[in-house]
Amino acid sequence: MRFFFSTDIRSNDIHLAGDEHRHLSKVLRVRPGEEVLVLDGAGALYTSELKYSDRNESVLKIQSVDRSEAANERDHLVIAPTKNQSRMEWLVEKCTEMGLAEISFLRSARSEKTKLKEDRIERIAQSALKQSGNRFLPKINFELPFDSALELAADHKYIAHCIEGRSREALKVTSGSNLILIGPEGDFVETEVEAALEKGFRELTLGDNRLRTETAGFYVVSAVQALRSI
Amino acid sequence: MRFFFSTDIRSNDIHLAGDEHRHLSKVLRVRPGEEVLVLDGAGALYTSELKYSDRNESVLKIQSVDRSEAANERDHLVIAPTKNQSRMEWLVEKCTEMGLAEISFLRSARSEKTKLKEDRIERIAQSALKQSGNRFLPKINFELPFDSALELAADHKYIAHCIEGRSREALKVTSGSNLILIGPEGDFVETEVEAALEKGFRELTLGDNRLRTETAGFYVVSAVQALRSI
Repeated sequence: MRFFFSTDIRSNDIHLAGDEHRHLSKVLRVRPGEEVLVLDGAGALYTSELKYSDRNESVLKIQSVDRSEAANERDHLVIAPTKNQSRMEWLVEKCTEMGLAEISFLRSARSEKTKLKEDRIERIAQSALKQSGNRFLPKINFELPFDSALELAADHKYIAHCIEGRSREALKVTSGSNLILIGPEGDFVETEVEAALEKGFRELTLGDNRLRTETAGFYVVSAVQALRSI
Repeated sequence: MRFFFSTDIRSNDIHLAGDEHRHLSKVLRVRPGEEVLVLDGAGALYTSELKYSDRNESVLKIQSVDRSEAANERDHLVIAPTKNQSRMEWLVEKCTEMGLAEISFLRSARSEKTKLKEDRIERIAQSALKQSGNRFLPKINFELPFDSALELAADHKYIAHCIEGRSREALKVTSGSNLILIGPEGDFVETEVEAALEKGFRELTLGDNRLRTETAGFYVVSAVQALRSI
């Protein structure tokens, strides 16, 4: 099944502009009356038919809608961006496929000063949504200061690090939401870990392997899902 | 720590050729007498010093060697290659970081006829090894027929598929080695699943998300590790 993406829904019409419009009208040459499936990234799958395409947009008439409820257990990955944007694009694609609820890019003491291309990352997430048929786009926060990350609410809060001599635990997943912080290549500094502990975080180890940042991110998202399903 | 990779070890000397030689001599301009760390991908970490670099190679004198034992629990991912080679390169990189023992590319009924660039994939694995500091390169089999995959030995054998109406179980990890088959985008055909069941495989679900092939592959490798560490 091929899906389109739009959040521009007015009364009974869905409007597609930009790439989605061009893809529908110029590449697939969908004709008025043909069926089109549209995701809004917020739980709805619309079955619609094309009313018309003009130069600027395609307008679809909604025929039915199927709404999913968001999962109760919303997991949130907070990760320091790598210098190489493509590694973060890859991570967003994979987290979208996996149905992660929220991803934030962290500004910590040793974070790279990466200026992420927000539009491009949003498009990659939309594209992964359409490809996977998932109903929910992850919420993406492009710049989250470390202090703000510590104030986030979750049932279980973890800070992953590799600082030697500190006691860390393996990931356990019980019911409830998880908030997991992954540091930059240079790791968190010890004062950051201490500050997190004061806010109720637990120290997390991801095992003996020295993982790249984005690998650690996807590993954690996979691990939470695997542990939840047993 | 920066590592080099070589399997060309003769008595007390390590020989580096090709890219490794050029990187050491031309990029890093290592001088005779300087220390160089070398991984052989088979468990050894050599501490050595440069004897000399000439036009064709660099020769290192071994000073000490630290050997790791291979994990007892050797997991093996068998996966149908995607048409897009870069997605398989990415998977090999990630599996190497994670310390997977073996990865095979499967030729099944609906596999893409992908001709993988073997040299390039081997280099990517070596590069991920050096980056992660892991001691063991995954063994990579570039073309494994489906019938041969069914004859492979492991303590626990799974075939992951999405065929509707069939009963599948979630991944459980107990002690012992795991062999996991991931099919092509078009999935396994039912006769393949039946043949696997006869050989002692169990039917596996990876959850409700429609994952790309390489995402499913890395998810499984992560899940095994997460489940083993609880």
